[in-house]
Amino acid sequence: MKPTQSILSQILAEASELLGQGKVADYIPALARVPNNKLGIAVYTNEGEIITAGDAQEAFSIQSISKALSLTLAMMLYKPEEIWKRVGKEPSGQAFNSMIQLEMEQGIPRNPFINAGAIVVADLLQSRLSAPRQRLLEFVRQLSGDAHVVYDKVVAASEMMHSDRNAAIAYLMRSFGNFDNDVIPVLNNYFHACALKMNCVDLAKTFSYLANKGQCVHTKKQVVTATQSKQLNSLLATCGLYDGAGEFAYRVGMPGKSGVGGGIIAVVPGEMTIAVWSPELDKSGNSLAGTRALELLSERIGRSIF
Amino acid sequence: MKPTQSILSQILAEASELLGQGKVADYIPALARVPNNKLGIAVYTNEGEIITAGDAQEAFSIQSISKALSLTLAMMLYKPEEIWKRVGKEPSGQAFNSMIQLEMEQGIPRNPFINAGAIVVADLLQSRLSAPRQRLLEFVRQLSGDAHVVYDKVVAASEMMHSDRNAAIAYLMRSFGNFDNDVIPVLNNYFHACALKMNCVDLAKTFSYLANKGQCVHTKKQVVTATQSKQLNSLLATCGLYDGAGEFAYRVGMPGKSGVGGGIIAVVPGEMTIAVWSPELDKSGNSLAGTRALELLSERIGRSIF
Amino acid sequence: MKPTQSILSQILAEASELLGQGKVADYIPALARVPNNKLGIAVYTNEGEIITAGDAQEAFSIQSISKALSLTLAMMLYKPEEIWKRVGKEPSGQAFNSMIQLEMEQGIPRNPFINAGAIVVADLLQSRLSAPRQRLLEFVRQLSGDAHVVYDKVVAASEMMHSDRNAAIAYLMRSFGNFDNDVIPVLNNYFHACALKMNCVDLAKTFSYLANKGQCVHTKKQVVTATQSKQLNSLLATCGLYDGAGEFAYRVGMPGKSGVGGGIIAVVPGEMTIAVWSPELDKSGNSLAGTRALELLSERIGRSIF
Amino acid sequence: MKPTQSILSQILAEASELLGQGKVADYIPALARVPNNKLGIAVYTNEGEIITAGDAQEAFSIQSISKALSLTLAMMLYKPEEIWKRVGKEPSGQAFNSMIQLEMEQGIPRNPFINAGAIVVADLLQSRLSAPRQRLLEFVRQLSGDAHVVYDKVVAASEMMHSDRNAAIAYLMRSFGNFDNDVIPVLNNYFHACALKMNCVDLAKTFSYLANKGQCVHTKKQVVTATQSKQLNSLLATCGLYDGAGEFAYRVGMPGKSGVGGGIIAVVPGEMTIAVWSPELDKSGNSLAGTRALELLSERIGRSIF
Repeated sequence: MKPTQSILSQILAEASELLGQGKVADYIPALARVPNNKLGIAVYTNEGEIITAGDAQEAFSIQSISKALSLTLAMMLYKPEEIWKRVGKEPSGQAFNSMIQLEMEQGIPRNPFINAGAIVVADLLQSRLSAPRQRLLEFVRQLSGDAHVVYDKVVAASEMMHSDRNAAIAYLMRSFGNFDNDVIPVLNNYFHACALKMNCVDLAKTFSYLANKGQCVHTKKQVVTATQSKQLNSLLATCGLYDGAGEFAYRVGMPGKSGVGGGIIAVVPGEMTIAVWSPELDKSGNSLAGTRALELLSERIGRSIF
Repeated sequence: MKPTQSILSQILAEASELLGQGKVADYIPALARVPNNKLGIAVYTNEGEIITAGDAQEAFSIQSISKALSLTLAMMLYKPEEIWKRVGKEPSGQAFNSMIQLEMEQGIPRNPFINAGAIVVADLLQSRLSAPRQRLLEFVRQLSGDAHVVYDKVVAASEMMHSDRNAAIAYLMRSFGNFDNDVIPVLNNYFHACALKMNCVDLAKTFSYLANKGQCVHTKKQVVTATQSKQLNSLLATCGLYDGAGEFAYRVGMPGKSGVGGGIIAVVPGEMTIAVWSPELDKSGNSLAGTRALELLSERIGRSIF
Repeated sequence: MKPTQSILSQILAEASELLGQGKVADYIPALARVPNNKLGIAVYTNEGEIITAGDAQEAFSIQSISKALSLTLAMMLYKPEEIWKRVGKEPSGQAFNSMIQLEMEQGIPRNPFINAGAIVVADLLQSRLSAPRQRLLEFVRQLSGDAHVVYDKVVAASEMMHSDRNAAIAYLMRSFGNFDNDVIPVLNNYFHACALKMNCVDLAKTFSYLANKGQCVHTKKQVVTATQSKQLNSLLATCGLYDGAGEFAYRVGMPGKSGVGGGIIAVVPGEMTIAVWSPELDKSGNSLAGTRALELLSERIGRSIF
Repeated sequence: MKPTQSILSQILAEASELLGQGKVADYIPALARVPNNKLGIAVYTNEGEIITAGDAQEAFSIQSISKALSLTLAMMLYKPEEIWKRVGKEPSGQAFNSMIQLEMEQGIPRNPFINAGAIVVADLLQSRLSAPRQRLLEFVRQLSGDAHVVYDKVVAASEMMHSDRNAAIAYLMRSFGNFDNDVIPVLNNYFHACALKMNCVDLAKTFSYLANKGQCVHTKKQVVTATQSKQLNSLLATCGLYDGAGEFAYRVGMPGKSGVGGGIIAVVPGEMTIAVWSPELDKSGNSLAGTRALELLSERIGRSIF
């Protein structure tokens, strides 16, 4: 069955029963202020149709969803072995910001979606781009077709003021020889990427290349190769939802990436890209109602990769 | 493109270049004695066609592949919450027999495919079945359509003689209240399951229900529900290849389960089940040439879940 | 200043203010039943004088204090290198029954006073003695001069019924080749040693060889050499109080060994042996009021090794 | 027996047999350049007598020995609870620069002699002193009676260039709220303390207060109270030799502190302070020949705290 506006509305109605049972991220004030009862969804099909419900047009902080964009950019700039000698492809089995495994495994992060791995990717972008922050913004504006996507400067500044843990991670990797640039500017770019402000429609359109063998649906531009698109999806499926990737695969069954702003993008390869948003998080740091909405969507339209 | 006998032969020819570069499991003598240059593949389509190449008819020790069968049996006997309160659904990020995480996480194994998790599943079967060992054997004989499948008694006895680590795991879980029966008989059944002797054709047919929404292709019997089949595939995709699940997803892109006997089963949902066998293992404990054969197959026929 | 009966009484009066603030060990019923307000002390000088106060004559379960006796016995039976290749001499920095470090360090316990180390010592005694349990009892009866010292059979049986964690530890060491005998009989002897029932006077006399260059004060028998006595004291000082050895050294400043029964023995080399008992434990598992009594004693008589 | 010049010479002759079997610290070039066959010892008695042998007058980088001086200074400036709520008193059971335990224990270092703990102490000094670096230098010059003690600027600068691991440690503690000042200046002071250049005679005299109930032997000045001196010795005994404190207690039996420059100071409370120096280190990072010299001295003069 194809997703329709009426199915999406029904799904949100059901998923909204979970509102009030999660916890909005509060480690920086800018995130804590977001109203907790927001809920939106957008589906972008490979035929270019966009279907939405709820707060799908309201912009929010995409946070770790940006890690999938930065990795895509790095895969466009580097040979595979240049990336994968510096970061692994395996689930971590630990909290997203843990340093224990990083020390045990000699400064090589488990995958590009935990903080350490995303910081290595930011370091890679810093080494090869003259203005990585501007480049990422242009990239996202092109992919989303929305020229008004911006960095939320307040969020980025606030993250920078609470950057001690990430600085510790960067310095630890430097001590193992797995970090090439100065720590502060790399972290600054990393936090700006996290502070991208986008809505569900923007996000669903932005990631359409993952559902379409690497080709952006509306620009027809080949962003990455079909093989790279498959590889990106595999990494999202095994590592994209913090320490809740297994549960997400079990319930939703789509490659996905979440952020602590409450957004999640998910992919049905060959068919569609989906973005949901609801700020309250479950104990793994993934959107509570957002995950539920994706689970219901998977059931209703009978789509999953399994 | 559909898999043909000629494609499979070509794939094995290429994959065989890796023979000699891996290491046959040698922790028990019975496994160490297997010739290291074996290589076989069998594809079983949802239309009931079987295509094979190489040593596809030669029986080997399926080892951890049995963990997927035991879990299937447990899912047939128990309500979901009865299983998932005792074992998780997340990748472990650690060696298959590590006790570190198990202690930190209070005796709840990360997933049913690491040793600790499979031992919990064996404990569940022990609690509900009067003769779990016989029942598993009947189950496999039905699924494979091969009435001659047997336990390799020498392998089972040899495993039992090297069972200290697994006994430690079982006792640690008991100390946390997550183990209900006597340790020795449960381990004995667990080792018998690992000692099932099957060939690639048997295995491809046995797991056809995972590619066919829970229904066994040749018997037409509904083994598990379509939802359970999807759930099993999700668990295989995130946790089925020891600490190499991410790499396997990246290269092959199919839910799968490997064993240290050198076998791997893989699933293309809606289309086919595949079994490969080659005894030499990579450093994660997965068949070196077998993984390569699956990677090549995924490329040639253009099939993967991503 | 020399310890007198009046000083000891005063000390107990002060230390008793802590009664009610700790927690009696309750992992086995036999220990949980002990009245929580007991408090006793005995000092045995190298001149053979015994000075006591409070419940010094009441027998209690010595628990881990027995680990110092078993190690002494092992040092009498084995060459140093035979012992120290199987167990280390360093503080563990972890809980007494943790398996994490034991797995990381390949089955070699950090020191003979954590459970894993004491179980290795029990395995050593099992290999060399025909009746280790009887031999330990004779040894203690001689050292204490009390022919009525017995094993508390109820406690030993109760420990055996809650032995899963220790069985896990033993099997893990066996899997690393650091355990030679059958697990059950060794654990049974280990638990019997823990279940020795002694009072403060017995204990102070028993350990007099540690204050007297290896010679038992009342029998004049040389139990170990002066060097071995020094070595035993060094191990007690760095590893004798679970994960509270540093705090104990800081406050009390004497080599010592505690048990979860609430007993502690402490040594002023060249001068005296002290035993205290009070069942309520602090969060490290050491007697709360007992530690306070030793701290006060150290202050009043101006004695410590530092 | 009292130590004499002839005993010291004999001891060095024996200990020198180990020269060539250790490894000079080479993580910074300035340390790697030191000749590896140096060996010196100085004993400073509480009567004010100095006895030396070998290279006792040659200055070297005291490295972590400075951690005992910084802690002493902090104890002079702060109330006990102000220090001990921020750093523990227990052995770590892990490498001196490990971050694993630090993360598990929420940014509270195990003790003041591992890097994390010494950095907390440096942070404490930074908060209360206007010029901590100058103050430490004056302190050492007074204690040693040597007005020519200086910081080795080359070593300090070299350490600063290899400070990534320590920066990671500082930032991790900051993320847990256990670090108050800017990271760079604190690390700079920390590295200067490590870069103090002193000889064995200087060091033996500097630490005389630890053998003399807190009073400096030659200035007669009360540096810390008798109780604080006892506390400092207890911390040295349980935590002063990296992950080799237990072995050092077993063989030498004196409170001590080592540095990767090859120096070790040791204390016989009530009698004498000893300093040894030999640059080659054992696998725990302690001077190989230096430890042996102390072990022999302990045997020959029959002195130890046990």
